[in-house]
Amino acid sequence: MTDKGLFITFEGPDGSGKTTQIHQLAEELERRGRSFILTREPGGTTIGDAIRSIILNPEHTELADHTEILLYAASRSQHVSEKIQPALKAGKIVLCDRFVDASIAYQGYGLGEMVATVKQINDFATGGLTPDRTYMIDIAPEIGRQRMKRRSGVAELGAMKDAADLDRIEMRALAYHQRVREGFHAIYEENKQRIRLIDGAQDQKQVHRMICDDFFQFIRRFD
Amino acid sequence: MTDKGLFITFEGPDGSGKTTQIHQLAEELERRGRSFILTREPGGTTIGDAIRSIILNPEHTELADHTEILLYAASRSQHVSEKIQPALKAGKIVLCDRFVDASIAYQGYGLGEMVATVKQINDFATGGLTPDRTYMIDIAPEIGRQRMKRRSGVAELGAMKDAADLDRIEMRALAYHQRVREGFHAIYEENKQRIRLIDGAQDQKQVHRMICDDFFQFIRRFD
Repeated sequence: MTDKGLFITFEGPDGSGKTTQIHQLAEELERRGRSFILTREPGGTTIGDAIRSIILNPEHTELADHTEILLYAASRSQHVSEKIQPALKAGKIVLCDRFVDASIAYQGYGLGEMVATVKQINDFATGGLTPDRTYMIDIAPEIGRQRMKRRSGVAELGAMKDAADLDRIEMRALAYHQRVREGFHAIYEENKQRIRLIDGAQDQKQVHRMICDDFFQFIRRFD
Repeated sequence: MTDKGLFITFEGPDGSGKTTQIHQLAEELERRGRSFILTREPGGTTIGDAIRSIILNPEHTELADHTEILLYAASRSQHVSEKIQPALKAGKIVLCDRFVDASIAYQGYGLGEMVATVKQINDFATGGLTPDRTYMIDIAPEIGRQRMKRRSGVAELGAMKDAADLDRIEMRALAYHQRVREGFHAIYEENKQRIRLIDGAQDQKQVHRMICDDFFQFIRRFD
C-alpha cells in the first residue's frame, strides 16, 4: 500500500477495452461505498490537459520523440503531485487509466528509445511512485485497431470517433503497435507480483469479473 | 564548432540586459552579412510556444517543480530538433536566448533540485548539444528586478511590462534569484573555456563592445 490509500492502474493498447473496464470497476466501488477517485493519463489536471492537447494534436507532426517523452513525463509529474498523492494521503483508492508502464511500452519499446532512460525520467516525474496493482489488458494490435474503427457513440473519450478521426499516436504503423505490445509483455514479465495480465479478446463481462475477483481479494489485505 | 554552424547562447537573469545584447549582436551580424538565426527559450517553435505559455501562465500556481523542469526540457528538445540542429547543419550561426545553463541555474540551483538530475534530463532533451560560446551576463538580483520594474515601451518581450505584470517565475522571492545567480557563477567556474562572464551593471554599449570583440575574434577560428 502506498501511504494510506491504494494505487491501481489500468494499462493496455487502444481498443483493449481498458477504459470500459476501469469505469466498470469504479461503478462497483461506488456500489460498495468505497472512497475512490478515477483519473487518467495524459491529463487528469488543468495543466496536464493543456499538455495532453499538445501531445495529441494531429497537426503536431513535427513533435520530436524526445519532446513527446518529456511531455508525457511532465503531465505525469503534475498528475502525481496535484491529484494522485493527495488522494492516496487521504486514504482513497486511486484508479488511474495509464501510468509509467504506458510510457515504457509506447516510448521505450515502441519508439525504440532506451528503456532505462525512459524509466529514469519517469522516476523523476513520479518521485518513484509505483502502483500497488496493475491490470494490463492484452490484445493483438489488429483487433484493437478494428475495435477503434468500429467505435461509435460509447467511445473511450465519450465522443464518436471514426477512422478519419484517429489521433497522432493512433495513426502510427502497426509495427509500432506490435513493439508496444511486446513492451507490455516484457514489463509484465519483470513485475508479475504487481501486474495481472488479462486477455482482452475475451467477453467484456468476463474481463470485468476477473478484475473484480482479483481486486476485492487484493484489497482485503488492507482493510 | 558544432557540425558546420556555430552555436552561441546568452544567459543571465531577468533584467540583465541579455535580450538587448543578443539583438544588438544580431544587428551586427546582419550588417556584416553573416547567415544566422535568432531564437529563444522557452519557445522558439510552435510546440515550444505552446509549452512556454503553460510554464509562464501566472494562473498556474499549482505547477509542480518537477513538472516545470520537464516542461522546459520538452520545449528545449523540440527547439533543438526542429530549429537549432537544422540551422547548424545548414552552416548558420545560431544565437539563442537561454539554453541548458538557464535550467541548471533556475531549476537546479534555484529550486534546489539535484543539479546532476537536471543535467541528465537536459542531456536527453538536447541529445548532448553544447554551445560553442556562451555570454553570461551577471547582475545582482536587486538591480535586475529594479530594471524589470522600470521597463516601459522597449521591453524584453517587445511589450510594456510593469510590476503588476510580472510572470510566475519573475514573482519568486529574492532569495531564489540569489541562488540562481550563485548557480550561474558555479556553472561559469566549471566552463571557463566556453563561457564569457560579463558584468551587466556596466553601460549597455560597453557590454555590447565586449561581446563583439570576443565574438568576432572567436569566430575567426572557424572562417
